[in-house]
Amino acid sequence: MKRDLVEITREVDKYLGEQVEVEGWVRNHRKQKEFGFIDFADGTQFKSMQIVYDDKLDNFEDVQKIRVGSAISVVGILVKSPKEGQLYELQAQEVKLLGDSLENYPIQPKRHSREFLREVAYLRPRTNLFQAVFRIRSLAAMAIHEYFQSHGYVYVHTPLITCADCEGSDQMFKITTLDFDNLEKGPDGKVDMSKDLFGKKAFVTGSGQLHGEAFAMAYKKIYTFGPTFRTENSNTKTHANEFWMIEPEIAFCDLNGLMDIEEEMLKYVVNYVLDRAKDELEFLDSFVENGLIEKLTKLVNSKFTRIAHRDVIDILKKADVKWEFEPDYGEDIAKEHEKYITEYFNGPVFITDWPKDIKAYYMKQNADGKTVAAVDLEVPGAGELMGGSQREEDYDKLVRRIEEMKVDRSTIEWYLSLRQYGGCVHSGFGMGFERLLIYLTGVENIRDVIPFPRTPGSCLY
Amino acid sequence: MKRDLVEITREVDKYLGEQVEVEGWVRNHRKQKEFGFIDFADGTQFKSMQIVYDDKLDNFEDVQKIRVGSAISVVGILVKSPKEGQLYELQAQEVKLLGDSLENYPIQPKRHSREFLREVAYLRPRTNLFQAVFRIRSLAAMAIHEYFQSHGYVYVHTPLITCADCEGSDQMFKITTLDFDNLEKGPDGKVDMSKDLFGKKAFVTGSGQLHGEAFAMAYKKIYTFGPTFRTENSNTKTHANEFWMIEPEIAFCDLNGLMDIEEEMLKYVVNYVLDRAKDELEFLDSFVENGLIEKLTKLVNSKFTRIAHRDVIDILKKADVKWEFEPDYGEDIAKEHEKYITEYFNGPVFITDWPKDIKAYYMKQNADGKTVAAVDLEVPGAGELMGGSQREEDYDKLVRRIEEMKVDRSTIEWYLSLRQYGGCVHSGFGMGFERLLIYLTGVENIRDVIPFPRTPGSCLY
Repeated sequence: MKRDLVEITREVDKYLGEQVEVEGWVRNHRKQKEFGFIDFADGTQFKSMQIVYDDKLDNFEDVQKIRVGSAISVVGILVKSPKEGQLYELQAQEVKLLGDSLENYPIQPKRHSREFLREVAYLRPRTNLFQAVFRIRSLAAMAIHEYFQSHGYVYVHTPLITCADCEGSDQMFKITTLDFDNLEKGPDGKVDMSKDLFGKKAFVTGSGQLHGEAFAMAYKKIYTFGPTFRTENSNTKTHANEFWMIEPEIAFCDLNGLMDIEEEMLKYVVNYVLDRAKDELEFLDSFVENGLIEKLTKLVNSKFTRIAHRDVIDILKKADVKWEFEPDYGEDIAKEHEKYITEYFNGPVFITDWPKDIKAYYMKQNADGKTVAAVDLEVPGAGELMGGSQREEDYDKLVRRIEEMKVDRSTIEWYLSLRQYGGCVHSGFGMGFERLLIYLTGVENIRDVIPFPRTPGSCLY
Repeated sequence: MKRDLVEITREVDKYLGEQVEVEGWVRNHRKQKEFGFIDFADGTQFKSMQIVYDDKLDNFEDVQKIRVGSAISVVGILVKSPKEGQLYELQAQEVKLLGDSLENYPIQPKRHSREFLREVAYLRPRTNLFQAVFRIRSLAAMAIHEYFQSHGYVYVHTPLITCADCEGSDQMFKITTLDFDNLEKGPDGKVDMSKDLFGKKAFVTGSGQLHGEAFAMAYKKIYTFGPTFRTENSNTKTHANEFWMIEPEIAFCDLNGLMDIEEEMLKYVVNYVLDRAKDELEFLDSFVENGLIEKLTKLVNSKFTRIAHRDVIDILKKADVKWEFEPDYGEDIAKEHEKYITEYFNGPVFITDWPKDIKAYYMKQNADGKTVAAVDLEVPGAGELMGGSQREEDYDKLVRRIEEMKVDRSTIEWYLSLRQYGGCVHSGFGMGFERLLIYLTGVENIRDVIPFPRTPGSCLY
């Protein structure tokens, strides 16, 4: 009977001493004259299994020629392993080559640079590092769905193609079916977009929030989880042109209620990964970020601080630190400030009530006339992990703000009207999924937590 | 203490006779001289709750003015309802208007046409029909994640932006940051795409399969679940330009194994929805598709037939039916044939081993030289719900087929090389999520199962 390694591990006592058949890939192959060892992985768990064979195999000579990367099937007896940290190994009775691997197979059992591995992104999940990262990506995605679904949220697929220009079209990709080389121009010298598939200019979006709010007004609690696009031409460790976002929206929920949800959700996801990715996290703790497991465990057990932006600035101003960027009541805070403030409180910090001029038009205006009911969550070792706000539910105030900020109102009339048809106090936040993954895995570069990353000048595969 | 309706329903005995507070929206409002009835929904469950109030309320006159669509909060005593099918109602002690609704609120308590409701897509989830449909959408999505995760699959976010031209770029949207009105042309008269963000032409993709196969070669079992785009200029009930797809890929799995998975997965999802959306399905059964619940229950209990394409053609040719399209061994089958064959077998039918010339290059070539190991699942009342195949794992055969079919090989060399680095028998399928939803809800038009549908000429909101 064919078995996955994860099945064997789950009930190892049942299989010890029994014959099993496995299918998977050769990670490493050490040959001696009369026997050999194959480091075997089938992808169903992080840990590989040692296969021991000897010259009693009919095809011993052929088996010795099996190269790293090859697909094989093995029948054998499962026995206790003498190796520390290994529960079992397989004494082979039959080894079959299913798929050969060429001599030039790029993933040889040695240390490869992450830069090199990005160039073979289609092979890198076969390495320990990326095997761990992308399994954690999958688990964290499931944790997010489980958290929201078990708390009664409705998952909404907001559209990616949009004609609403609300986030500033200069940050959005244009999408078209027109032939670039033969564009028809109108009398005004501009391209006639009425010839395009949607009859007008269309973009791929950077947020599902506005559509999410519409659904929160019907289901009370909703979340989105989908890909998002930005045209930013920045080649940094934290920027990608395609990434995934989670955007919950909750009706009848104020800023305090929102922070409760953010804290509970984050702890749920971290706990879920701690429970289910022990081997992966141990590997990452040893080879990528020392103290990773301790960092995550500490987060789960910490109480998140809540403090207003102006009080953060007070603390920063009083600090005995020579800042590169001087803290200011009317300004955003810099990376150095984020770091200081999470260290100051020795844990995650919700910073609330931001100066309205540096925040978006849809955020709830506070009574002071200067700030909005926005909240950023700063997490030690991660920086800003979530950004949210209570939304302005007052139609007149919202419209006034849109006019002040010169936002094009024509494409979002429908959104404004949500305030005229049973609007209510409501709040929402956005979390960049990759930022969470960088935090969960300790991997520093966003290119290394996305299966096939897209960055300026780089769209391989 | 504030409560969601779904919480009250879950433990109704605990709350009966108790004071509760609820927040939500007015679906309907019937006023008498000395009392009134509010049909109240908070979106946490399908069923609304009746609120009874009388002139003992301090603000009785104001409450009587509350319009349909308004957001309200109500404190009252939960009592048994005299109405059939209602577990409870609320005797109001306090009714507060939280958010007014204008007199012109489009969703009045009467029957609206689906065409009209598409024009107010941001409000339609407040109607019974769409409240049901989009909750089922959310539940079905969760069911899919649960099925695959609990069976050890890794969820992979394959890229949407791609420069690989493998599916035929004429079916893909082009994506760009260039200014249409000021495109720089090269000496050959063509637009200089090296100036674009990725340094070359880029598209949004119609499938994650190729990237999924790469990850299946590392994790054995993977699935994708994400948005997909097609430029098709068809205005039919089943076409949209943006929709969601599920694409699992499984290593060491042949066509029979694939059919096992498809059948098990589909039954799991249908069962999940039957269990968790009883009220929604009852509504849809009454008002949208009579017999819907029976149809779904029957599917769960049926054994799916497996039959080769040529044998299906035999049956069709022998049938005493005047076909609009004559069945042919070398051809695809038409809608009328799909319908006949599922009725013939009185249940879902896997049709296998299709003529190779009407199928994709990556499908496993059968020994007969004429067919490929492809499988379409035909479901009564849904037509083709999934399409899959064993993938060609033989490098030379795959390359030969690509050359025969004149597929541009240059952008998929990485994909071909998967066969050179430990390739193995593997299979995968694709399921259009909206097609599943049309089946699950009985709603006929794809525009009515997508929150904000995008179709040719139509990109509202």
